[in-house]
Amino acid sequence: MQSTMQQDQLSLATLLKYAATFQGDSTVSTWTGDGVRTMTYRELGAEAGRLANALRGLGVEEGDRVGTFMWNNNEHMVAYIAVPAMGSVLHALNIRLFPEQLVFVANHAEDKVVLVDGTLVPLFAQYLPKLTTVKHVIVVNGDASALTAPDGVTVHDYRTLIDGQSPDFDFPVIDERSAAAMCYTSGTTGDPKGVVYSHRSNWLHAMQVNSPNGMGFDGSDSVLAIVPLFHANAWGLPYAALMSGANVIMPDRFLQPQPLLELMASEKPTFAAAVPTIWGGVLAALAAAPQDISHLKTAVVGGAAVPPSMMRAFEEKHGVRILHAWGMTETSPLGSVAHAPAGVEGEEAWAYRYTQGRFPANVEARLVDDEGKVVPNDGESLGELQVRGGWITGSYYSPSGAEIDPDKFDDGWLRTGDVGKISPNGYLTLVDRSKDVIKSGGEWISSVDLENAVMGHPAVAEAAVIGVPDEKWDERPLVAIVLAEGAAAEAAELRDFLADKFAKWQLPERWTFIAEVPKTSVGKFDKKRLRAQYAEGELDVTTLG
Amino acid sequence: MQSTMQQDQLSLATLLKYAATFQGDSTVSTWTGDGVRTMTYRELGAEAGRLANALRGLGVEEGDRVGTFMWNNNEHMVAYIAVPAMGSVLHALNIRLFPEQLVFVANHAEDKVVLVDGTLVPLFAQYLPKLTTVKHVIVVNGDASALTAPDGVTVHDYRTLIDGQSPDFDFPVIDERSAAAMCYTSGTTGDPKGVVYSHRSNWLHAMQVNSPNGMGFDGSDSVLAIVPLFHANAWGLPYAALMSGANVIMPDRFLQPQPLLELMASEKPTFAAAVPTIWGGVLAALAAAPQDISHLKTAVVGGAAVPPSMMRAFEEKHGVRILHAWGMTETSPLGSVAHAPAGVEGEEAWAYRYTQGRFPANVEARLVDDEGKVVPNDGESLGELQVRGGWITGSYYSPSGAEIDPDKFDDGWLRTGDVGKISPNGYLTLVDRSKDVIKSGGEWISSVDLENAVMGHPAVAEAAVIGVPDEKWDERPLVAIVLAEGAAAEAAELRDFLADKFAKWQLPERWTFIAEVPKTSVGKFDKKRLRAQYAEGELDVTTLG
Repeated sequence: MQSTMQQDQLSLATLLKYAATFQGDSTVSTWTGDGVRTMTYRELGAEAGRLANALRGLGVEEGDRVGTFMWNNNEHMVAYIAVPAMGSVLHALNIRLFPEQLVFVANHAEDKVVLVDGTLVPLFAQYLPKLTTVKHVIVVNGDASALTAPDGVTVHDYRTLIDGQSPDFDFPVIDERSAAAMCYTSGTTGDPKGVVYSHRSNWLHAMQVNSPNGMGFDGSDSVLAIVPLFHANAWGLPYAALMSGANVIMPDRFLQPQPLLELMASEKPTFAAAVPTIWGGVLAALAAAPQDISHLKTAVVGGAAVPPSMMRAFEEKHGVRILHAWGMTETSPLGSVAHAPAGVEGEEAWAYRYTQGRFPANVEARLVDDEGKVVPNDGESLGELQVRGGWITGSYYSPSGAEIDPDKFDDGWLRTGDVGKISPNGYLTLVDRSKDVIKSGGEWISSVDLENAVMGHPAVAEAAVIGVPDEKWDERPLVAIVLAEGAAAEAAELRDFLADKFAKWQLPERWTFIAEVPKTSVGKFDKKRLRAQYAEGELDVTTLG
Repeated sequence: MQSTMQQDQLSLATLLKYAATFQGDSTVSTWTGDGVRTMTYRELGAEAGRLANALRGLGVEEGDRVGTFMWNNNEHMVAYIAVPAMGSVLHALNIRLFPEQLVFVANHAEDKVVLVDGTLVPLFAQYLPKLTTVKHVIVVNGDASALTAPDGVTVHDYRTLIDGQSPDFDFPVIDERSAAAMCYTSGTTGDPKGVVYSHRSNWLHAMQVNSPNGMGFDGSDSVLAIVPLFHANAWGLPYAALMSGANVIMPDRFLQPQPLLELMASEKPTFAAAVPTIWGGVLAALAAAPQDISHLKTAVVGGAAVPPSMMRAFEEKHGVRILHAWGMTETSPLGSVAHAPAGVEGEEAWAYRYTQGRFPANVEARLVDDEGKVVPNDGESLGELQVRGGWITGSYYSPSGAEIDPDKFDDGWLRTGDVGKISPNGYLTLVDRSKDVIKSGGEWISSVDLENAVMGHPAVAEAAVIGVPDEKWDERPLVAIVLAEGAAAEAAELRDFLADKFAKWQLPERWTFIAEVPKTSVGKFDKKRLRAQYAEGELDVTTLG
């Protein structure tokens, strides 16, 4: 039986029109170092029209990719909605990718136009000669003449290009499953892999970001978007803000703790989003120079597991609720979010909030063991997390049509590569990446659990644990410690600190003290490099008896 | 360009599975008069499986309609999700429809099975012989033998039928645009008209109900669903609760103010939903016998405009925030919701909250004048409200395929029949129904504005205003007053009370005092009957000079 409902399309063109009219008083602001420049959503709507007309004038058609090589700022937000709304595809380039990766993704996506922030022109200039599909570069807030254009490429100044354009553009409502935006994973192995979000997936995801069991910000919030817009679909923040009428505050290039705290003192955001590394820096800066940041009701943290000690420090010392979330580029990215269940308080609530949280109805989740069997959600059985749903990728982008990494998919489910357990009431606890979990004598030891526990020691700033070959047990953990500034600790003392938190057979014998943990371009621990350093004999390892 | 996202279907089968597992500890409870009987969502999942197996056993296939003739209770909630999840179509019958309408809608929808509450068997028994498509009647919590089955109809006892069934049912994930449920409008003119909701529309609508700019309840709330499940898609409450993990409290047949207050004292709901008539009764009962109901953070009120005096009384005397919402059966029903804009407080916030509120991104809205021209959202221009979107009906259900009331649709938009204005920041203020607005000398007078204003007078319990023929002005308002118990007031005094609230030419000359305002089956003012009473000379009219 057919329904009588209208045959609608969830389209970002509709979202743009909505935000510019029904939420027209809301704003996006960019920090300039000592203040903000602000644009209402009404003005954003007009600016999006001008940009769309300008891009159309440059030959950008439906489906064409428009890259951005930008910090988080007003102009980036305009591009984020204008490009998909005109039926083209936004490709936010990760400015921190290694050069060969950056060139790879821009060529693989076949970006036709790239918008580049003025301050990033020197960096982009190194890549431009190697970009084979780019026809136009638009320099935003900078000196376009500073960029030498290779043959066949035209360089434009953003304001000169768009100021004369009409603010009216007939944004098309296209099929909701069409491409709207794309992001590449910054995997540590092999080439980056592309994920193409649709209008539908971004719309549904934005609704979930706004939901109380998602991030839950609303039209009364000012959202500080520290997470780069090129990181994992910007965590859905731009579209969710346009949908709810939340104000957005963009930090531009001011991402160090001190300028972020100056921004907060000035703009008093009520909600913020960033990876743990940023929050660790902010916490340290606050310890050095106290500042009231309790205007920040909630800070959502994802991209890596959050140390419980950091969550408690923010809440207990600074009145900021840290909301732990799990997701990945392949999941748009919002997967699970760690809100405590109704009625649960105190330490029990904290225990729930330390987990990766619960999934929304739009994301189906299951755990699968080494034999491909689904394991029960009993809070104990470990398995690889697999997810399914409308904002989960079903493949990697392949211009040739040849399947890329098909073993990442299992009968319609995405294999996340994360190992964890799910409680009977649906809370996910990840214990490791499937490639990082330490297989010791047939049992699994979570490298992440060891890291979190040892980071609770006051002398430890950071810790990374990898599995290293062991003759007797196949693999045993090696703990790499970065000591806090001015602190000192011996391996034996740190092992004793872990003794009541782990079974005896799980306690590590091997320890090494390092200056810093190697990190990937998005700030995650780069365990591949750490393993290589160990293999090359570059680490000075203490082995306890 | 195609996206790489999975080809998902928004399916109520997925929602049922999700609620029963990831929100399995949440509950639905039914008031028994002195306590509740409670079922977890985990148990609801098993019960839904049993019911689906039983219905399949009775020959219910995909697309078949299953009617309910029930109060709000646990079993009704089970049917609400189980029937669409099995691919069939839930048709909640309005137990308060006039007999000929009830028979019309059940036959028009071709209901194959009807679930009937035991206490409603005597009422249903009158209709059953006239229902031409019903093959099975299932009596819930009552005496099945009390119902005489016509030829070709089998009567079953609910528990006997389902207790032996397996809780496992392979709920199919069907095309998301397929029918999930249907409701008929209880229009005061012509036959009731059917609206068929889809899996997709109910899913999207549930996400919006949960959104902070929708109703905004979440997994920490206990939702008292006073609005009947047969009224306008149950305002989306069942699906939104299953999605968010909110607990649901069902009042069953205990809908009078006193038992509702006993229920509240016992169960302490944090959220409730009902039409203004119910809240008026609760307010009066609280005045007579004070009770702390501040556990109720929010009460959403829709189905008719809420008098500002009622909103303030609830908030200022009882600590309950009344959330004003607009919608209709044709809109699933959530249209606009009156949250004040961010940062607005005091009287200005109240002024926003008295409006019909702002639309979510999923509902496009425009105002159209008599000539079919879209009027601007300037806060002054009046027009008929038209809406468009995925949970707005695009037609009325027609088994024959012949269009029903095509003039209710305008180029893909639903004509709501409501006249109003929209402010530049998107707030809708309805001033009247297009058929009730009073056309006086070429100007429009809102009957609703007059009603709200005069109901602010302490002596007035209810007031209804209709346009009556006038030789000079074409139409003039007639005010029908129901005095508060024990109160007295003259027409002149009431007109004086309005004098500073309206232009002089808008002030009514004609007044009548009546015992009660005639109401439709869902409790709305029946102005058609009032007009007929006036035309028949049944009203005793005072005309002021």
